[in-house]
Amino acid sequence: MTVPYSELELRRSKVKRLMSAQGIDAALITCNVNLIYTCGAVASGWLFLPVDGEAVLFLKRSGGVKEADSIKVRKPEEIPAYLTQKGYPMPKTLMLEGDELSFTEYNRLAACFPEATVSPAGTHILREARSIKTPWEIEVFRRSGEAHARAYNRIPEVYRPGMTDLQLSIEVERLMRLEGSLGIFRVFGRSMEIFMGSLLAGDNAGAPSPYDFALGGAGLDPALPGGLNGSLIKEGQSMMVDMGGNFFGYMGDMSRVYSAGRLPDEAYEAHEVCLKVQETVASLARPGAVCEDLYHAGIEIVKQSGWADCFMGTDQQAKFIGHGVGLEINEAPVIAPRMKQKLEEGMVFALEPKIVVPGVGPVGIENTWAVAAGGVEKLTLCPEAIRPLGV
Amino acid sequence: MTVPYSELELRRSKVKRLMSAQGIDAALITCNVNLIYTCGAVASGWLFLPVDGEAVLFLKRSGGVKEADSIKVRKPEEIPAYLTQKGYPMPKTLMLEGDELSFTEYNRLAACFPEATVSPAGTHILREARSIKTPWEIEVFRRSGEAHARAYNRIPEVYRPGMTDLQLSIEVERLMRLEGSLGIFRVFGRSMEIFMGSLLAGDNAGAPSPYDFALGGAGLDPALPGGLNGSLIKEGQSMMVDMGGNFFGYMGDMSRVYSAGRLPDEAYEAHEVCLKVQETVASLARPGAVCEDLYHAGIEIVKQSGWADCFMGTDQQAKFIGHGVGLEINEAPVIAPRMKQKLEEGMVFALEPKIVVPGVGPVGIENTWAVAAGGVEKLTLCPEAIRPLGV
Repeated sequence: MTVPYSELELRRSKVKRLMSAQGIDAALITCNVNLIYTCGAVASGWLFLPVDGEAVLFLKRSGGVKEADSIKVRKPEEIPAYLTQKGYPMPKTLMLEGDELSFTEYNRLAACFPEATVSPAGTHILREARSIKTPWEIEVFRRSGEAHARAYNRIPEVYRPGMTDLQLSIEVERLMRLEGSLGIFRVFGRSMEIFMGSLLAGDNAGAPSPYDFALGGAGLDPALPGGLNGSLIKEGQSMMVDMGGNFFGYMGDMSRVYSAGRLPDEAYEAHEVCLKVQETVASLARPGAVCEDLYHAGIEIVKQSGWADCFMGTDQQAKFIGHGVGLEINEAPVIAPRMKQKLEEGMVFALEPKIVVPGVGPVGIENTWAVAAGGVEKLTLCPEAIRPLGV
Repeated sequence: MTVPYSELELRRSKVKRLMSAQGIDAALITCNVNLIYTCGAVASGWLFLPVDGEAVLFLKRSGGVKEADSIKVRKPEEIPAYLTQKGYPMPKTLMLEGDELSFTEYNRLAACFPEATVSPAGTHILREARSIKTPWEIEVFRRSGEAHARAYNRIPEVYRPGMTDLQLSIEVERLMRLEGSLGIFRVFGRSMEIFMGSLLAGDNAGAPSPYDFALGGAGLDPALPGGLNGSLIKEGQSMMVDMGGNFFGYMGDMSRVYSAGRLPDEAYEAHEVCLKVQETVASLARPGAVCEDLYHAGIEIVKQSGWADCFMGTDQQAKFIGHGVGLEINEAPVIAPRMKQKLEEGMVFALEPKIVVPGVGPVGIENTWAVAAGGVEKLTLCPEAIRPLGV
């Protein structure tokens, strides 16, 4: 979505405030999500963002960003000479995106500013700024949630008995694309890879995966060992659809459960446990609430229900029940043990209590929530009961 | 696809030979494509690969790789103590994946081996090893090419007049998935992002993009400014389908051109120019052929044809006509000016001469080729003429 100029100004001043508080004079920003955040689009280039003075966008090639006022360069080594010529003081402390740039690229950029103290804090500071969404960003999430719900609501139309999990997933992926999903799934770091999201059916939901998602799945190939495994969906099995809702660059997150016919009663009970976890955590979530407290409040309900051994997986249990979402699927905050971070107004997070019922499959819920002054707003409005398919 | 043990042994010994030639004692390998290459699957962990002695796979979590003989650790800092206990000498020179690991992660891993000289050559050496495919890998490419061709051959069935480029792409994506595509598109570095591939129709094929693909496209959203732009496909326009063929982890590459009705004669002429470029380059490609020579042989044909201004784009022209493919879409070698690298037996590359005909759209061809002892083998067998749709 086209980002208004005033919105970009707001974001940049937020980043500058955080830089200033850490004694950083200037940033050189080049990773795609951070350029989307500060410039409104992916670009092939570098944004020089000083705490004092005008930002300058250096572009290696056209496309993506609007190019008014950008400076064409062939390589980053040309940046300092331009800045000097325009009267910019060389930064004393320059921040780079230390958790995103490769070791080699970081060193190359650092070497362009030999007199600066170079800090890798760029990733941390930009992620901190990005973790508090603006009203504009929250509105984008609302619209994404609507498109996401429209796609899920059509899942009963595309199901046919005798499908494999892969065949059903392909139809769900198509529905998501028809509603406008950009398809790509942006992740921070190296611990996750996935196509558009996951569809987990039956016991495959409990299969371990090397990826750091809430549930695993064996996958189709050792080159992508996560998610669906190509097995037939059987009567009495549950399926969880958990697609990334990337409609306008923001990764909204929502999971819903479907069943092939009727499930054993215990599956509906386990689903209710997850809904109760959601209700409890959502009722406690507000500015100032501590993430680990929210986690423990949820876990307490699970323990009392007797489902703790199957919560967030069976063979491998995820140690979180929620995570921030934004331009990437894994932003701050994380709702997990030992997380002392407090919720703040503007944070947007996914809450995903899930139980894998042995012999049946996954149940539970995932919605995306925005933290408002007095509580939280649900951004993914879509029926939450287990929906039977093929009836 | 499950990688046989003998194949992994072959790959590891190739990597070790390259390490040895550079005076490197051991590697710590952790990036997904390099773990697929050396261990046969994605893993959450680290492969310690010494030039002399047994390799050890350290795993943080299960899933992906077969776990026989792997060692469970919580964090990489536990690796050196295990090695010492098992009698491994500490490496004097350790290589890490310097162009893939983030600055922060590289430094963390390097700090685990404080007495070693740490080299960032891991990326370079693994990419060099990966650039020469084994017979097993070439056979995987052959099978990928067959599935890729089956999907493209069904495109005429899914086209309906009045579709947008997005609507047609969604159906092509579905065909690719039905043939077994894993969907994800693996890329080296930060210069490319794409969903499953691109479908470019009409003049959008000439629109500049910040991404480093052969052709651009404006994209649907500034958050992903490349590829299709949602416009209606009009009678007399051409479309190029260029999907990544990731069926078993290997990114086979193939482009084919379709037309809405009949195109102006000049489009067929331009298409023939691209086929002649392909024929000429393929006839010269063999072990020992120099990449820049292949590029110039192709360009010479384009210049003589008068299409140079529209070759590989209009507003923005790509400066290559071919690139290695493998576990990532952009491997060595690159067929471009100033590339002195020589082809070697076992290299697999995509050759993609393309012309954007103003007012009509993209024409041209892309196939994936393997370098054999006496020449090259085409791995993507599928009709190469412009195929009319809706007739």
